[in-house]
Amino acid sequence: MGKGLKKREEDFSSWYNELVSKADLAEHSDVRGCMIIKPYGFAIWENMKNELDRMFKETGHQNAYFPLFIPKSYLSKEADHVEGFAKECAVVTHYRLKNADDGSGVVVDPDARLEEELIVRPTSETIIWNSYKNWIQSYRDLPILINQWANVVRWEMRTRLFLRTAEFLWQEGHTAHATKQEAIEETEKMLDVYAAFAQDYMAMPVLKGVKSENERFAGALETYCIEALMQDGKALQAGTSHFLGQNFAKAFDVTFSDSDGKSQHVWATSWGVSTRLMGALIMTHSDDLGLVLPPKLAPIHVAIVPIYKGKDQLNEISVVANQIAHKLRALNIKVKFDDDDKRKPGWKFAEYEMKGVPLRIAIGPRDLENGTVELARRDTLEKSAVNQEGIEDKIVVLLKEIQLNLFKKAKNFAQNNTHKADTIDELSNILDNKGGFVLAHWDGTKESELKIKEKTKATIRCVELDAPNEKGVCIYSGKPSSKRVVFARAY
Amino acid sequence: MGKGLKKREEDFSSWYNELVSKADLAEHSDVRGCMIIKPYGFAIWENMKNELDRMFKETGHQNAYFPLFIPKSYLSKEADHVEGFAKECAVVTHYRLKNADDGSGVVVDPDARLEEELIVRPTSETIIWNSYKNWIQSYRDLPILINQWANVVRWEMRTRLFLRTAEFLWQEGHTAHATKQEAIEETEKMLDVYAAFAQDYMAMPVLKGVKSENERFAGALETYCIEALMQDGKALQAGTSHFLGQNFAKAFDVTFSDSDGKSQHVWATSWGVSTRLMGALIMTHSDDLGLVLPPKLAPIHVAIVPIYKGKDQLNEISVVANQIAHKLRALNIKVKFDDDDKRKPGWKFAEYEMKGVPLRIAIGPRDLENGTVELARRDTLEKSAVNQEGIEDKIVVLLKEIQLNLFKKAKNFAQNNTHKADTIDELSNILDNKGGFVLAHWDGTKESELKIKEKTKATIRCVELDAPNEKGVCIYSGKPSSKRVVFARAY
Repeated sequence: MGKGLKKREEDFSSWYNELVSKADLAEHSDVRGCMIIKPYGFAIWENMKNELDRMFKETGHQNAYFPLFIPKSYLSKEADHVEGFAKECAVVTHYRLKNADDGSGVVVDPDARLEEELIVRPTSETIIWNSYKNWIQSYRDLPILINQWANVVRWEMRTRLFLRTAEFLWQEGHTAHATKQEAIEETEKMLDVYAAFAQDYMAMPVLKGVKSENERFAGALETYCIEALMQDGKALQAGTSHFLGQNFAKAFDVTFSDSDGKSQHVWATSWGVSTRLMGALIMTHSDDLGLVLPPKLAPIHVAIVPIYKGKDQLNEISVVANQIAHKLRALNIKVKFDDDDKRKPGWKFAEYEMKGVPLRIAIGPRDLENGTVELARRDTLEKSAVNQEGIEDKIVVLLKEIQLNLFKKAKNFAQNNTHKADTIDELSNILDNKGGFVLAHWDGTKESELKIKEKTKATIRCVELDAPNEKGVCIYSGKPSSKRVVFARAY
Repeated sequence: MGKGLKKREEDFSSWYNELVSKADLAEHSDVRGCMIIKPYGFAIWENMKNELDRMFKETGHQNAYFPLFIPKSYLSKEADHVEGFAKECAVVTHYRLKNADDGSGVVVDPDARLEEELIVRPTSETIIWNSYKNWIQSYRDLPILINQWANVVRWEMRTRLFLRTAEFLWQEGHTAHATKQEAIEETEKMLDVYAAFAQDYMAMPVLKGVKSENERFAGALETYCIEALMQDGKALQAGTSHFLGQNFAKAFDVTFSDSDGKSQHVWATSWGVSTRLMGALIMTHSDDLGLVLPPKLAPIHVAIVPIYKGKDQLNEISVVANQIAHKLRALNIKVKFDDDDKRKPGWKFAEYEMKGVPLRIAIGPRDLENGTVELARRDTLEKSAVNQEGIEDKIVVLLKEIQLNLFKKAKNFAQNNTHKADTIDELSNILDNKGGFVLAHWDGTKESELKIKEKTKATIRCVELDAPNEKGVCIYSGKPSSKRVVFARAY
């Protein structure tokens, strides 16, 4: 059937690429680094988006839309930001094409050169704060709590579907506040929203922490993040929430008069997650047979496959299948009854396994006699004969169980793959042999961080928010340290 | 309050611009022709999008996502298409910026020139059909029924918020079929979806028809459209559905083997609506006090304004207001209780009128005594005293009534502003004095169409699908004609 994947143990990277392709999630386009998200992949992303959007609205945010293009000069206004973002980006220089003189097609019209080049947004702080300037006069105009769902472009040289692409889809929240305290609270609140989403919907446990200065967002005073552990022992940054201080307000001259009539600069946050979450979802749960999806994000919950010879048998089975499908749909369970006569049951089984459908029902002639069906779980691959009568209640329970089981399994994996290291050699050894998160002492300096990275290829993923105080010495410099931080090799 | 608008009769165009600004729907950005859709405007667009998306899915379509960028050479592959779209567009020529030598900011890095320029998509037929080529081998792979929600860019010289902007948001459906008949049925089905959405959700009556050859989409064999009539008597094309024949399949060499194993080119459709619908919605219903929204698309259905002196009175009123709000929310009615102490009731009344909130409740101390509230309809501006008891049932009925009333009013307007003309002078006269749709005979030639346009500034909006046969002569050429077509001046 050509559906088999490389094994994860043999070659995790090829396994991932093959899975993304064979589960029909995404593919590379002819445009360097830009992906095509196929309908099945997009349906999963839509489910993520809908839940996140609901969570943002429940925490008081509204959606809006800002321009795709940013005038080049805007990027330069915030010094750190331009260093971080003004390097690899798509630059629009002209606004017209014309027919080539030699009839060979169209060419750029040299007369249609823009006075100032436009950058396709790599992130929207600059264009948004340029607008907020006009929206904010008084403390009465604050807070502004806005989110936008958008495409952004960063000209990446080495791309991988979902994980690192030149164009990707994301949401970016941009909020404006009257006080530092309120802005920090917002930054932390949105980190909690991301963590809750990762755990409750993606069934993906995450660490919550802050980045070291070196790994901070360009222009932020503090970058909070959630970090997840993939099955190959590498970490993946799954979402970030930035406390931007007054940097962008100062760069774009955004002030407000407080209740005493005094003029002050506005405080800012920004926060985002992207289609990268698709990569995280895949690498957290999936196995050598294909995708494994948590029910809360699955486009199809139950696939029903008839096992039959001839049209009469199919008709009899269809009656039962449609009854079950009807009862399940009434409970908001998404069902696909696959009566396509052009494919064999074995092909369909492999297909729904590859696509990570949480439950599969098979119905054959023997089942009709017995009033049963065969029910198979995608997560454990367990099969059992189940009575048709009352099957809907069983499925409701099972879907919840699968959701929890996936989280538990991933949580166990993360725990079993979190180690402590007290020397740099120990860190290297663990990363070379087991991978995972490694807790180690660090003196808080950029120099030590970079040296450790150089020697071990590990970065500091975060300083966990709830890391206990523990006296120790930096594994590089031997200088004192008050808590362990999380090292890992990362995507 | 500075909230007043120009009157529609005096200056429709200024009225529109002021309304868009004062109802907080959108504004111009610093980037030429690109708009910022503000939260209130975006909430209306989101409501439109959600309903349309549901309708697309109910008719069997799936969402996907294709790249923002199109290689320049793709545009040239379909001859008509390149003529229509390869003119005014944003061209990406470079992929990197660098620090300027003189320290003045960033400049385009001349070493980072793309080998082939990329065009920011003005529409996605070319990039999508280039992908379909790999997705389609056999008749079993058909039909493909895909939609994408995306931003597109057409470098318009004269822009107006929502109506004509360089960047706009839209959806574009792109379907692939095994037979001509099936593709034509799809084209017509999606036109029906658009017409149903316009009428049932936007409360906007539309004509359904086909465009003349001259007004066809670049690359289509037939362009179907819905046309609406704005309050100033100008027509607005609100959605189009294109039968593309085999043009794109031939341009991108997309073939399939049919059930006999014979290789054939695939048949195509594409169809789209955009944020332009926001302009249509505004100009169909709104009045000199501001926006008027059909309840089915309103972000807020009911605004409750307390009328009070002092905190104690506000507290008493709040109890009643919250009870009502609670009962309404249980019925999925979106309520805003505006107890902001910084604004006076008169200001709030004007604000909710400007924003088109369908119903307003005012509660004062007298109402507390009487067990009543004052209920005001935005569409008719009628006010009445209504008992608090059972008000939720009344509001459910009223919201339906307002939805229907808006449609009826717009339908009457369109009927009263549809005229017949039998000579070109008559056509000119009607357009100069009354505007509206004008039904007139036309000989079917491009030449006559262009001459009529030159003399009257009117275009053929469509040949209505249900236009009755009627023998007549073309108002320009005098040649025979078998039915009247719809002329109008248009947005």
